Amino acid sequence: MKICRFEYQGKVKTGVFEPEYSKVIDDETKEVLSVSKIKMLAPTNPTKIVCVGRNYAEHAAELGNEVPKEPLLFLKANSSLSLHEENIIIPPQSNQVEHEGELAVIIGKKCKNLTENDNPFEYIKGYTCLNDVTARDIQRKDVQFTRGKSFDTFCPVLNYLETDLDVSDIKVQTRVNGIVKQEGQTSQMVFPVDFLVLYISNQMTLNEGDIIATGTPSGVSKMVDGDICEVEIEGIGILKNKIVN
Amino acid sequence: MKICRFEYQGKVKTGVFEPEYSKVIDDETKEVLSVSKIKMLAPTNPTKIVCVGRNYAEHAAELGNEVPKEPLLFLKANSSLSLHEENIIIPPQSNQVEHEGELAVIIGKKCKNLTENDNPFEYIKGYTCLNDVTARDIQRKDVQFTRGKSFDTFCPVLNYLETDLDVSDIKVQTRVNGIVKQEGQTSQMVFPVDFLVLYISNQMTLNEGDIIATGTPSGVSKMVDGDICEVEIEGIGILKNKIVN
Repeated sequence: MKICRFEYQGKVKTGVFEPEYSKVIDDETKEVLSVSKIKMLAPTNPTKIVCVGRNYAEHAAELGNEVPKEPLLFLKANSSLSLHEENIIIPPQSNQVEHEGELAVIIGKKCKNLTENDNPFEYIKGYTCLNDVTARDIQRKDVQFTRGKSFDTFCPVLNYLETDLDVSDIKVQTRVNGIVKQEGQTSQMVFPVDFLVLYISNQMTLNEGDIIATGTPSGVSKMVDGDICEVEIEGIGILKNKIVN
Repeated sequence: MKICRFEYQGKVKTGVFEPEYSKVIDDETKEVLSVSKIKMLAPTNPTKIVCVGRNYAEHAAELGNEVPKEPLLFLKANSSLSLHEENIIIPPQSNQVEHEGELAVIIGKKCKNLTENDNPFEYIKGYTCLNDVTARDIQRKDVQFTRGKSFDTFCPVLNYLETDLDVSDIKVQTRVNGIVKQEGQTSQMVFPVDFLVLYISNQMTLNEGDIIATGTPSGVSKMVDGDICEVEIEGIGILKNKIVN
């Protein structure tokens, strides 16, 4: 099932999204609404966006890094969150803005200190496509990843979540102007989705709606003004954004 | 003026805090409430906590770092936010939890891309005491600061803001069990408060309620179970927390 958040008659609501009919069924009123009558929002309003670095071995290698022994965590500012079909804006500080297409996990209920006896999937609401846009030059200069990954518009996500999906081995592909740049299978993750939720819940409390960006396959590349970047994940859909100066 | 957030009769409210009388004046009803009748909350509910590293030259030096040419930014997870007199909990992963007493700036209204013609102080709601608690061993291991600084309880703040304060040259002192460990004047900041707001607003949109932790003076040290840590800032007050295993 595809679920979404949207604005209608001045209220923020949730619903079931049916892309094939361009309709949303309002959770509260059960009214069927045309997508043209509503404003689709990001499918979650997170208290934090936790990202996992170097979670595909080939991507770690292409940036000259080793695969970490534990998941390498960092945060993107919530203010970087943006929408499907919104522009990614190149900030004047950077000359090297790159795509990083990723599977995003959305937390369904608060969790802290999960153990081996817990089922991490019970704490997941769904999955979506996310582009962990990165000013590579600033990331390298700062060493800390925060600034280079937190510019406004640097975290577009698709406008719905897929709730029913086996994420153990699905394709994550990123294209620029239709040309495949990144491609990987989630089975290639160094740390799989369930381990990531377990692990992160032992570092910090995860709240309902929080996003975990699970890392990117190899093939990151620079984007320039006018480029169209698409992140497609098997069983979810296609996140599409234009890059502008 | 000291302003606060509190819970009363199941509602989150704001008010003016009068510590000398242990009273709060409810903004909405003007009722005078005894602090014993309410639950004081963190004085802000931020969308992000932006921290500035190495903003006092002597602290940069004590950790073997140079003073950065631009402010070095990182984020603490919102889930690490905690309260005055709440315990700081040492996580099992760390053997070296240290205090970093800091002046915290609370943003009063949304700002983005401020210029030299703007007055950054117009975008500041007030100031409070913050302890940027850090698992130094994990910070060193990860290189990324995020995890070592984002454990739950690792961001205690005082339970009110001071709105009227000249922050150009005030004392920031941190004590453990009454012994002075860190002491600095805000005039020693590499990048002063107004520059930080201007600078950060050009990296990411700052929202009302967001926290900027302005960096810590030299003298950081390890805390152990049972220690009492106090961060005192001239003209604001004393943030006090116990450390527990």
